[in-house]
Amino acid sequence: MTSSYGSIFKIQTFGESHGPGVGVVIDGCPPRLPISLDEIQRDLDRRRPGQSSIVTQRDEKDDVEILSGWRNGVTLGSPLALLVRNEDHESGAYDHLENVYRPSHADYTTDQKYGIRAHEGGGRSSARETIGRVAAGAVARKLLHHTANIEVLAWVQQVHGISASYDIDKISITDVEADPTRCPDPDTAAVITEAIEKARKDGDSLGGVIQCRVRNTPSGLGDPVFSKLEAELAKTMMSLPASKGFDIGSGFNGVTMTGREHNDAFELDPHGNIHTVTNNSGGIQGGISNGENIYFRVAFKPTATISSSQRTVDTEGNEVHLEAKGRHDPCVLPRAVPMVEAMACLALCDALLRQATVDYLSID
Amino acid sequence: MTSSYGSIFKIQTFGESHGPGVGVVIDGCPPRLPISLDEIQRDLDRRRPGQSSIVTQRDEKDDVEILSGWRNGVTLGSPLALLVRNEDHESGAYDHLENVYRPSHADYTTDQKYGIRAHEGGGRSSARETIGRVAAGAVARKLLHHTANIEVLAWVQQVHGISASYDIDKISITDVEADPTRCPDPDTAAVITEAIEKARKDGDSLGGVIQCRVRNTPSGLGDPVFSKLEAELAKTMMSLPASKGFDIGSGFNGVTMTGREHNDAFELDPHGNIHTVTNNSGGIQGGISNGENIYFRVAFKPTATISSSQRTVDTEGNEVHLEAKGRHDPCVLPRAVPMVEAMACLALCDALLRQATVDYLSID
Amino acid sequence: MTSSYGSIFKIQTFGESHGPGVGVVIDGCPPRLPISLDEIQRDLDRRRPGQSSIVTQRDEKDDVEILSGWRNGVTLGSPLALLVRNEDHESGAYDHLENVYRPSHADYTTDQKYGIRAHEGGGRSSARETIGRVAAGAVARKLLHHTANIEVLAWVQQVHGISASYDIDKISITDVEADPTRCPDPDTAAVITEAIEKARKDGDSLGGVIQCRVRNTPSGLGDPVFSKLEAELAKTMMSLPASKGFDIGSGFNGVTMTGREHNDAFELDPHGNIHTVTNNSGGIQGGISNGENIYFRVAFKPTATISSSQRTVDTEGNEVHLEAKGRHDPCVLPRAVPMVEAMACLALCDALLRQATVDYLSID
Amino acid sequence: MTSSYGSIFKIQTFGESHGPGVGVVIDGCPPRLPISLDEIQRDLDRRRPGQSSIVTQRDEKDDVEILSGWRNGVTLGSPLALLVRNEDHESGAYDHLENVYRPSHADYTTDQKYGIRAHEGGGRSSARETIGRVAAGAVARKLLHHTANIEVLAWVQQVHGISASYDIDKISITDVEADPTRCPDPDTAAVITEAIEKARKDGDSLGGVIQCRVRNTPSGLGDPVFSKLEAELAKTMMSLPASKGFDIGSGFNGVTMTGREHNDAFELDPHGNIHTVTNNSGGIQGGISNGENIYFRVAFKPTATISSSQRTVDTEGNEVHLEAKGRHDPCVLPRAVPMVEAMACLALCDALLRQATVDYLSID
Repeated sequence: MTSSYGSIFKIQTFGESHGPGVGVVIDGCPPRLPISLDEIQRDLDRRRPGQSSIVTQRDEKDDVEILSGWRNGVTLGSPLALLVRNEDHESGAYDHLENVYRPSHADYTTDQKYGIRAHEGGGRSSARETIGRVAAGAVARKLLHHTANIEVLAWVQQVHGISASYDIDKISITDVEADPTRCPDPDTAAVITEAIEKARKDGDSLGGVIQCRVRNTPSGLGDPVFSKLEAELAKTMMSLPASKGFDIGSGFNGVTMTGREHNDAFELDPHGNIHTVTNNSGGIQGGISNGENIYFRVAFKPTATISSSQRTVDTEGNEVHLEAKGRHDPCVLPRAVPMVEAMACLALCDALLRQATVDYLSID
Repeated sequence: MTSSYGSIFKIQTFGESHGPGVGVVIDGCPPRLPISLDEIQRDLDRRRPGQSSIVTQRDEKDDVEILSGWRNGVTLGSPLALLVRNEDHESGAYDHLENVYRPSHADYTTDQKYGIRAHEGGGRSSARETIGRVAAGAVARKLLHHTANIEVLAWVQQVHGISASYDIDKISITDVEADPTRCPDPDTAAVITEAIEKARKDGDSLGGVIQCRVRNTPSGLGDPVFSKLEAELAKTMMSLPASKGFDIGSGFNGVTMTGREHNDAFELDPHGNIHTVTNNSGGIQGGISNGENIYFRVAFKPTATISSSQRTVDTEGNEVHLEAKGRHDPCVLPRAVPMVEAMACLALCDALLRQATVDYLSID
Repeated sequence: MTSSYGSIFKIQTFGESHGPGVGVVIDGCPPRLPISLDEIQRDLDRRRPGQSSIVTQRDEKDDVEILSGWRNGVTLGSPLALLVRNEDHESGAYDHLENVYRPSHADYTTDQKYGIRAHEGGGRSSARETIGRVAAGAVARKLLHHTANIEVLAWVQQVHGISASYDIDKISITDVEADPTRCPDPDTAAVITEAIEKARKDGDSLGGVIQCRVRNTPSGLGDPVFSKLEAELAKTMMSLPASKGFDIGSGFNGVTMTGREHNDAFELDPHGNIHTVTNNSGGIQGGISNGENIYFRVAFKPTATISSSQRTVDTEGNEVHLEAKGRHDPCVLPRAVPMVEAMACLALCDALLRQATVDYLSID
Repeated sequence: MTSSYGSIFKIQTFGESHGPGVGVVIDGCPPRLPISLDEIQRDLDRRRPGQSSIVTQRDEKDDVEILSGWRNGVTLGSPLALLVRNEDHESGAYDHLENVYRPSHADYTTDQKYGIRAHEGGGRSSARETIGRVAAGAVARKLLHHTANIEVLAWVQQVHGISASYDIDKISITDVEADPTRCPDPDTAAVITEAIEKARKDGDSLGGVIQCRVRNTPSGLGDPVFSKLEAELAKTMMSLPASKGFDIGSGFNGVTMTGREHNDAFELDPHGNIHTVTNNSGGIQGGISNGENIYFRVAFKPTATISSSQRTVDTEGNEVHLEAKGRHDPCVLPRAVPMVEAMACLALCDALLRQATVDYLSID
């Protein structure tokens, strides 16, 4: 629990937003996986602040250092420790937050839980905490791709009331990265950009929905009871800052279908392989992947940090008004896309390696 | 992973639907918790088949036996093992399913994962698997109530397109248990009953949404990173058979709000205690409970087992048509209510006991 | 922690000595392992009371029932639950122990830990607790043998001051089972029998040393840091009732050798395979098996239950004298042999399956 | 498993001896524990090379940096990450080891396990791996002392055939640190020093026995089955490099006592508190501490690295002779003393925090 995830491919993250650094230790990555520093940095760069005009303008380079477990471009089988130093220490910017609870932030609950709190930048509840996840996710992504050609791709589907339309089977990473919004539909991306810019000017913020699709998942991944593959995906997605909902396949929309409409009939493809005619299951049946594409949605609330004046209380129990300072994302979704992908990669990678133990008696 | 859940209050379930029995071992329940056999049986009775005309008519009494960890009405601190024997062995009823993959069931994926399958009644993917969860959940529920007066209550909010309306703050267990649908709004309950009866006659099935509310949760429960309280709730809910979606607080509906609308301002109540004016957070902020009511929704798909003829393939790779026999639930939601409650109790109970270790230095 | 062991091949035991039953749930056993009820019962029969005149004369048949995870002679991949009912309820025999702390037993510490205690027969601290371990160990033993021909064999090497001599490379299960003492040296076995009989008559008890040897272990098992193979063996052995010491290879005797004498030189065998000339390492180097035979010793104290009068205190804090009644082992070693084997099988089986995840990128 | 230990106070170590650095992440340390950088550095200084003439002359300062989880002298409740940079990169000194397997080292087994190996300095099997343990152990030590005044003290009892004599009840840290051998008996320390110096000159090495004593342990710590307190101590001690044996209380020597001699009678002290007259149990009964002093021994083999010429094989399968270069410890025991203490602190600290969950219903 706490700051670790996974049963075989286990990650342990650490770091406050304004301490010396943040990072992750991956324990259980198989040896001899080829992976470069660039492959890890690439996902961190997609996550970092200051990428475009619609995200926070803090300038953090987030250069990653591999401390252990890696040599000459391959993993050693020992723990992979990855460290990103914190650089942009403007802790003075947080002085006004030391004694006040920001609405819908973790300030109050952190105090209630621990009786102590690193107020600068949110401490452990800062979005910087996700750096360790994204770095570990890049390693998991490589393992998935290297061993099974599995591809995990997420994108912004909706911001506030603005929804994108696209051919889901054709979306590529190029489409997603083509626009700073990470919405693969250029027309919608433009409208979203405008809405985000407007929210920022208004001292307000926006939420939305990210969609994720996993291609080439082999059948048989996931456990039938508590660690159903969708349960692990749900946990990992709902562990991301600001996420409020998760659904898979037909999801919440499927409740108005009948069983006859919803069931995914099996058929044989021209090669004699078993497939489903429809995919309301979202690629998972009984908690176990069936070989179809996995797809799911994650709902994100509007960013809690806004620059408008808000009513709140301070740590002494006085009612006060707060005007947040600092540079914040008016909409977290563009930067949440690599986080969603990272967590999906981690859940899948762990399931893939667990399956090696289930398959043990099949190996000749 | 696999069939266990929890870090301190750990449960390990076991059992196939048509083997000798199903059950659970709870390891980590504190000693000296008063709990009677009746308190466990009560939740099992709410889960069991044959309760009413709108659920499956199989007659299973599901009498629970306490094998260990309990003596004279209190727990001993040692593992609590709970066993329910399987009684209604009509395995002949499943002969026609031995070589065929039921659409949207776990038959195909189980074969892909394990290379072997107990086809009678779905084996480990049967809803009987939830007996162990519900029995363990009853113990967790008692612990929550005994130590912190926490109350976990779920009900049917929607079936197919039919939604209930009610005053959420006033719903009690009596309201929920008043009708076999477990919908606390009597008018809606009647319409739902009619819809379910019709679906059964049509050889079809219906899905819906369950709502759950947790009252009296102390602030400070839940972890700030991977085991955010909502992440554990999401995992446990998405691990239930037929669930397809989870959201908390404002959830998917919150994405069309702006930050200014969505943020929950803090205020002081007349006693000087900190509260939030609104509760879009659903009682959890930054993964940690804030003392407000926790509420979340779970979407369930229409039951996969329908009696209409369906297109599928058999284990030999032939395309066939399947007409399911046996007695099944045309809608899982009424029986899923105690399952949702059980899983919520398990997630909360584990968080409560974990917090005892966080609070360690506060105890004088 | 508590009553579970293992990371992949995980066992969860349960049961008090005088409750309804004792048993184990194994989660993570690969599917399609052929194993019969007899193979499990066989090890339980080696552990059970009443086998011979030198062990306790309680008559417990300890018949095992498989509750789940098994069908037609093979495992299903789901949790294997194994149950043994308690039959010989002479709880009246323990009435005199309700309010008194037996010296060197767990009575006092159990009360201190839990604030409650099932005093009959020691509750969870009874040797009956090992039934679950031995049953699970039989499954692990089969997996080790089935997949890698690994053989785990233990025997009584020493009782009190009486040590056996034998050719360690030639000892077989037949030699061990030839005598009720489980000492493979017939002359020593006779002397040991005499000593145990005398101790019983004197109302006293004896301790000793069990030796265990693991043949055909593949190289590469075990982890380099906290889960060194010898560390897992040490933990599992020191978790057995009455064990007081563990050493591997040269062990405590190796401390008087110099490095030059102690180091195991590598050489090539006639087939060009790497072997060590000596085996002071005991088959494990740096926590990882090297392919040589693994061997270790476990020290057991004299049984705490003796019929002589002993000085002690009662639960009210009075100094009293205790004369234990009931039927007890004057020497635990003969019955501890299958327990040592079971725990070694469990540690090795878990290491074997973990290695499948390390080898993941090697599988083509 | 792998590089993590603990269930509540969990540590995750990382680092190869010749990579960028080594360290540890502690997850589960309660918030508001006062601890200074100096308190951590102190134990690292006792572990580091170059302290005296009888240990390796490599000059490594091993300065620790706290990366997270700590602020203004107290813990935050979030993961504590501790990093020590590797400074003394003389990797050229290991070139001659790239293709050869050092006898009784982990070179061969590491290759067999992982199919890859960082040959410089032993990689993950280097004694530098223990830096993370010792750093984490210092935090655990502080927690034990701060909350329960528990004191963990180890010392060198025997080197080769040379044993110390002392009054075990009077040994203090001052006695242990008075001599570079960490043997608290000055006369024996002088003889040991001579023996170690001689072994170094001879290109040979020596082993020995470390004794550890834990004072002020409250009763009730430890679990009754697999995580018996002595089982956790055995695991942690046998996970240290070069350890070959562990025993507790009477240990291997107790096997020649009878039950009547061995049992620890209970008595009342003048204050009416329950104590044992003798302490053959070593402070633990049935896996649970009884409030008496805990004491145990750990056997260490002679250092595997010796400068004499040794017979071995290379990675190509040729028989060769090896003459090790570099600066090594002719006897690991003086530097192993803080490692033994660290691992004991970690095992005890985890047991202490676990007990908080057992005691949950006692807290009013």
